[in-house]
Amino acid sequence: MIKTRTYNSFSDSLLQARDYLSKDLEEVNRLILSKLSEKVPLVNGMAGYLIQAGGKRLRPILLLIIARLFSYKGMRHIKLAAAIEFIHTATLLHDDVVDRSTQRRGRPSANAIWGDSSCILVGDFLLSRAFEFVTDDGSLEIMEVLSRMTTSVAEGEIMQLGAIGNLELEEKHYFQIVESKTAFFFEACCHIGATIANVSEREIEQVREYGRNFGVAFQILDDLLDYDLNQVDAIGKDAGRDFQERCMTLPLIVLLERVNQAEKEEIKNIFKNATHEEEHLEYIQKLMRRYNIERIILGYAIPYINRALASLETLPACQEKEFLQGFISFTSSRKF
Amino acid sequence: MIKTRTYNSFSDSLLQARDYLSKDLEEVNRLILSKLSEKVPLVNGMAGYLIQAGGKRLRPILLLIIARLFSYKGMRHIKLAAAIEFIHTATLLHDDVVDRSTQRRGRPSANAIWGDSSCILVGDFLLSRAFEFVTDDGSLEIMEVLSRMTTSVAEGEIMQLGAIGNLELEEKHYFQIVESKTAFFFEACCHIGATIANVSEREIEQVREYGRNFGVAFQILDDLLDYDLNQVDAIGKDAGRDFQERCMTLPLIVLLERVNQAEKEEIKNIFKNATHEEEHLEYIQKLMRRYNIERIILGYAIPYINRALASLETLPACQEKEFLQGFISFTSSRKF
Repeated sequence: MIKTRTYNSFSDSLLQARDYLSKDLEEVNRLILSKLSEKVPLVNGMAGYLIQAGGKRLRPILLLIIARLFSYKGMRHIKLAAAIEFIHTATLLHDDVVDRSTQRRGRPSANAIWGDSSCILVGDFLLSRAFEFVTDDGSLEIMEVLSRMTTSVAEGEIMQLGAIGNLELEEKHYFQIVESKTAFFFEACCHIGATIANVSEREIEQVREYGRNFGVAFQILDDLLDYDLNQVDAIGKDAGRDFQERCMTLPLIVLLERVNQAEKEEIKNIFKNATHEEEHLEYIQKLMRRYNIERIILGYAIPYINRALASLETLPACQEKEFLQGFISFTSSRKF
Repeated sequence: MIKTRTYNSFSDSLLQARDYLSKDLEEVNRLILSKLSEKVPLVNGMAGYLIQAGGKRLRPILLLIIARLFSYKGMRHIKLAAAIEFIHTATLLHDDVVDRSTQRRGRPSANAIWGDSSCILVGDFLLSRAFEFVTDDGSLEIMEVLSRMTTSVAEGEIMQLGAIGNLELEEKHYFQIVESKTAFFFEACCHIGATIANVSEREIEQVREYGRNFGVAFQILDDLLDYDLNQVDAIGKDAGRDFQERCMTLPLIVLLERVNQAEKEEIKNIFKNATHEEEHLEYIQKLMRRYNIERIILGYAIPYINRALASLETLPACQEKEFLQGFISFTSSRKF
């Protein structure tokens, strides 16, 4: 039952945070929808579809909550959160083309509706628009954080692509990918939220540390959820996707380190023949249950969760701190 | 024989400019190849392939020559020219995927070698890296020029995609596309070259005007060359590409305005059946020759060329000015 717990705990905190930030999020939405493209209706249609699709909004929420944590009072956080959402949406659009997806968040993916070419170009538009927003904001420091972040995310995506179907992929390479594409992104959101609040270097470093570690833990657990070991529908997540795409994530890497020779051969055959059908996924899920992969993977996440929690320790108690703790409390409250 | 003249004149000026700027261009190349990716060898392989493929380098050359025109003495132009080349290369990578190309500049296109997914992600990487370069440079003004430019280029590309195969496309829409994707880009290169040289607003405006008009004229002539009406191989250009991609460019738009009903139906059939074979291209080329399309199209380019030349008038005579005039002298010296 870990999985539903996992999902619910994270989801509860996120829903509460969304409620708490509802005015800010409304402003972000308004800004996004008003600043798409005057010239090109397609951009508005596609980006509107994606942005209104009810994604988690985790990244902009991180930025907004950190800004509030440090009592930020201005309006810069709105534009910057919108930029973050643009960048994330651009990444999803390109990912869907790269992964040849047909579904996202339980609806047809944008490439299934508008085609790959539109997704590529609208992704480019959103990324550029994000940089326009940041330029308007006028801080070179934030510009630097964001441009380094998008470079890192692209590097992570390229490494991930190169690892497709590579059953020899080592754990350290998985972590390199996760650090580049997820941890760096979360860290940047926290960094920006703290920067606009004009706090000390030490406080910036604290929340960056939180974001970085939360990012890794989040990705590990997200990759675990994708194997859906408890057979519960994960809302907002298309389970089995990594397997279908032959994406090498930690659960599979860890499983391969533990199975016997015959099982390893069987997994290799499944991947070699690229017959990623339901029965093959079930076979792998069965092995993962047999080898206790869920428990092992949670064990991998815990040090990151603990570091993220530790980085918040010296912060005064407040609602925002509680949310930040809540986002990562899913596993720390459990005994293994 | 206009075409060979056109090509030779432009090409001569460009070759001479490249020679004149050889030290700067070497620095740009060195910077590009040293600053690709430490983490991801694929990026270096792909981007190296593209960047060393011997493109025209027209955009970075514009930036460099404008900087020199205004006696710029520092080193910022190198990094900014590299950023421009990164952005252009990113655009080409994504274009090749969108257009399903197999060839570029007489060699297999990057997507034909590395696949679409790699091209999408490496394009994203290069775009992000370009913004990193500009952030390092540290000017918000240049950041603004570049982020507006990449947004505009993406808008132009999206509009162009939406116009594919639309035989009803009007001239004004063609010009909207060209202004967004080509003129804005050329203008930005000139804008940046002048900005780092710290010249007056009036001088910046002059060279922006040059870039904008040169950009439109360049695109018009490039689109004309694609129909290869003089049957001469255009070096550095894959002739017939626009026709194969059903891309609506000015020669075809203008032809459609002039043909008789039967010919129009024939063209519609060719496009409807999507049978873009050699004989169909030849049929369209034959019509274009019959209706004097080349001459008409050159007539469209002339006002832009004249405006570009006029914008340079008050500048003192110098080698750089001669190059800028040379880039656009291909048609102005002819009588029609």
